[in-house]
Amino acid sequence: MPAPATRPNAADPQSAAPSRPRVVVIGCGFGGIEAVRALSGAPVEITLVDRTNHHLFQPLLYQVATAGLSAPAISAPIRHVLRREMRRGNLTILQAEAHAIDVAARTVDIGAEALPYDHLIVAAGATHSYFGHPEWAAHAPGLKTLADALSIRARMIGAFEHAERCTDETAREPWLTFVVIGGGPTGVEMAGTMSEIAQHTLPAEFRRIDSRQTRVILLEGSPRVLGAFVPRQSERAREHLGKLGVDVRTGCRVTAIDADGVTYTGDEASGGAEHRIASRTVIWAAGIGGVPLGAALAKSAGATLDRGGRIVVEPDLSLPGHPEIAVVGDLAAARSHGRGEPTPVPGVSPAAKQMGRWAAANLLRRLAGEPTRPFRYIDYGSLATIGRKAAVVDLPLPGGRALRFSGLPAWLFWLFAHIWFLIGFRNRLVVLLDWAWAYMTYERGARVVAEADGAPPP
Amino acid sequence: MPAPATRPNAADPQSAAPSRPRVVVIGCGFGGIEAVRALSGAPVEITLVDRTNHHLFQPLLYQVATAGLSAPAISAPIRHVLRREMRRGNLTILQAEAHAIDVAARTVDIGAEALPYDHLIVAAGATHSYFGHPEWAAHAPGLKTLADALSIRARMIGAFEHAERCTDETAREPWLTFVVIGGGPTGVEMAGTMSEIAQHTLPAEFRRIDSRQTRVILLEGSPRVLGAFVPRQSERAREHLGKLGVDVRTGCRVTAIDADGVTYTGDEASGGAEHRIASRTVIWAAGIGGVPLGAALAKSAGATLDRGGRIVVEPDLSLPGHPEIAVVGDLAAARSHGRGEPTPVPGVSPAAKQMGRWAAANLLRRLAGEPTRPFRYIDYGSLATIGRKAAVVDLPLPGGRALRFSGLPAWLFWLFAHIWFLIGFRNRLVVLLDWAWAYMTYERGARVVAEADGAPPP
Repeated sequence: MPAPATRPNAADPQSAAPSRPRVVVIGCGFGGIEAVRALSGAPVEITLVDRTNHHLFQPLLYQVATAGLSAPAISAPIRHVLRREMRRGNLTILQAEAHAIDVAARTVDIGAEALPYDHLIVAAGATHSYFGHPEWAAHAPGLKTLADALSIRARMIGAFEHAERCTDETAREPWLTFVVIGGGPTGVEMAGTMSEIAQHTLPAEFRRIDSRQTRVILLEGSPRVLGAFVPRQSERAREHLGKLGVDVRTGCRVTAIDADGVTYTGDEASGGAEHRIASRTVIWAAGIGGVPLGAALAKSAGATLDRGGRIVVEPDLSLPGHPEIAVVGDLAAARSHGRGEPTPVPGVSPAAKQMGRWAAANLLRRLAGEPTRPFRYIDYGSLATIGRKAAVVDLPLPGGRALRFSGLPAWLFWLFAHIWFLIGFRNRLVVLLDWAWAYMTYERGARVVAEADGAPPP
Repeated sequence: MPAPATRPNAADPQSAAPSRPRVVVIGCGFGGIEAVRALSGAPVEITLVDRTNHHLFQPLLYQVATAGLSAPAISAPIRHVLRREMRRGNLTILQAEAHAIDVAARTVDIGAEALPYDHLIVAAGATHSYFGHPEWAAHAPGLKTLADALSIRARMIGAFEHAERCTDETAREPWLTFVVIGGGPTGVEMAGTMSEIAQHTLPAEFRRIDSRQTRVILLEGSPRVLGAFVPRQSERAREHLGKLGVDVRTGCRVTAIDADGVTYTGDEASGGAEHRIASRTVIWAAGIGGVPLGAALAKSAGATLDRGGRIVVEPDLSLPGHPEIAVVGDLAAARSHGRGEPTPVPGVSPAAKQMGRWAAANLLRRLAGEPTRPFRYIDYGSLATIGRKAAVVDLPLPGGRALRFSGLPAWLFWLFAHIWFLIGFRNRLVVLLDWAWAYMTYERGARVVAEADGAPPP
């Protein structure tokens, strides 16, 4: 392709700098962004590929789903996020789907082109995993993308509208019953916020229904919610969920989900009996797995997938037998190599960022002829919020100890940590304003459903 | 239907207050909202029906389409907008589509129910009209709903992404050519803003393309843009559009629109020749017409539709032969009855508001046994913005004179008038913040496309 005469920025990658190593980065989540940033000053030619046009601040995605924030408040155009890196002249961003990776030919198929690479960083992320029941997806949407969040918002708001339209009491109840499956941070946030909306935001706004009669049920398979925290924090979270009106049921194994509700078997304490909840709104927050591209890559490269569909990587994050390919973020089943035994790296955003930077550093080491280094994850702590004024925080301290607190101080810590890490100064202002407003009024600023987001009413 | 024991608010309409006249209002735009507000203190039982869950501030919809504002910034849940009226206990809001009106049985079919009415106010609004070419709709979306705006945003942003992906120069040009059809306020706002984005927001963000090479072409059928203004203001607008880089072509009759572009014949000065513009992004801002419900109502009630598909109403806004039905807003072909000859009422939001209030007042007069009054429209002036720091303002003064100004003062006037009339204090703050930010940085805060808004890239 000849370089067009009008092109404003740097010279064409293929024609002007044929000797620079070509790096392709797939995915513009936390891992991909950090990898590009770390590489942008180096003598490499980078191409970043993402399906969407935006970087998403996933830790606040549940706020979009529950109508607290608008989609643009927690996302930003990739081109804007990486505008400084763009100016260095060695970065091309393409909005395109990476359909396949040819590890032998060293190309990424993006439909119109096959992008050649010398080094590849795969940061394509995770998607919902329904434990072998893909048919559940239609009835229990998960929360990974902006489209997911807008669809859940449309369902949740639509459920109250359906209930108000019902002229029959028995048909109404399933519309006022919400089930959240999975008691991790996302499930706890979703259930707590949905209950708050039903109890505090909506009551005065309906005529035929009393939104305070809404039931929000949180189903968790293990014996406690927030399993990544210590038992005492889980107990705090459960107490607070109870205060918010959430019916928390642990030790529950979901066996069926359809358009009319959820079936589950209880734990041994309840005799393992089968239960049925009639509900028209079910949210999936239980399992995630690697994206299909990861499975295809593992197959063609002879790598192993773990139980969650993540690619098992070498200590230095590279694909076994393919030092030119690194896998980072939620798609990688990685281990942290500190003192003592290697430990699994959790699927959280700080880990994805650290892996993205580490893979970039290892790539530069290889270019310099140096050996790569095994990844070491630094745990800065865990946060989870439950609702207004409640959260749990675990901060590791030296010597294996930890600082743990909950309640209002934890909520304020959570709030400022999340605003601090939000992309862009403007977004921080918008989110602060929206939250201050919501805090004072219980109103939720984004309780609006565009016609395309949800099914039209009957 | 028996009233459920748990219902929080007023008694059931049918059972508790059988003697109160039942008023059904269809549509929650400016006309419907004002009608409900004016009726809420009266001894009537009101049911408001709307397809969506939100009231939309349509004058700023082009800002959502051009990624300046998020959808929730210019819309608010109907139930929140009317929360004070809800508290009076005589208002029911149903999110439902009004499929048909049975003028003989006096019911509105909303699918699950047939709502009986004693009085009906139809404020169902307008939709795009393609002058007998419905097949153009797929290639040239119009701008009436939030879904329309998000879809146009996805197309506009997607066009630059497509251009960046193109490896072939000839295929690239149509992606960098935008055509706006219709030189009224919406067309002028869209064309001006799209050109600003190409010239100022995007240039540093792409590598293979120069977004400043983008062509924005505005096609208008009449000899000048902003035909509702005086010729001098039209000239000002045209000059400013030219400065922004918009190619304004007047006297153009569009004869074909397809996936690859637009065909039009020029005016006599150009010999009436046929021209073709290769473009992948065409926006329709040329014609609106009444919604299909209006045509169905006119047919069953024996009323007349005007050329624009609007229902010709009596001087008091009622349907001919049906004093119990009023039509207001964009769906009504109404005339203003002041001094002198009756004049057509323009399709603008202040007119819709005034008609909504007027129809409500006439309804109360009929309940009181008084004669209804012919509608009189009070024109507070016309505003149109062209881009950053440019607008035209016409304010009528007593004695048939008018205060007219343009440029920066007109833009500031436009800005504060629009923020003033925005629904909700929170929305005003959010919009002010977004605009201040955009003004300082040329950045557009909502340049984010959710996966569901647009087609995925190839």
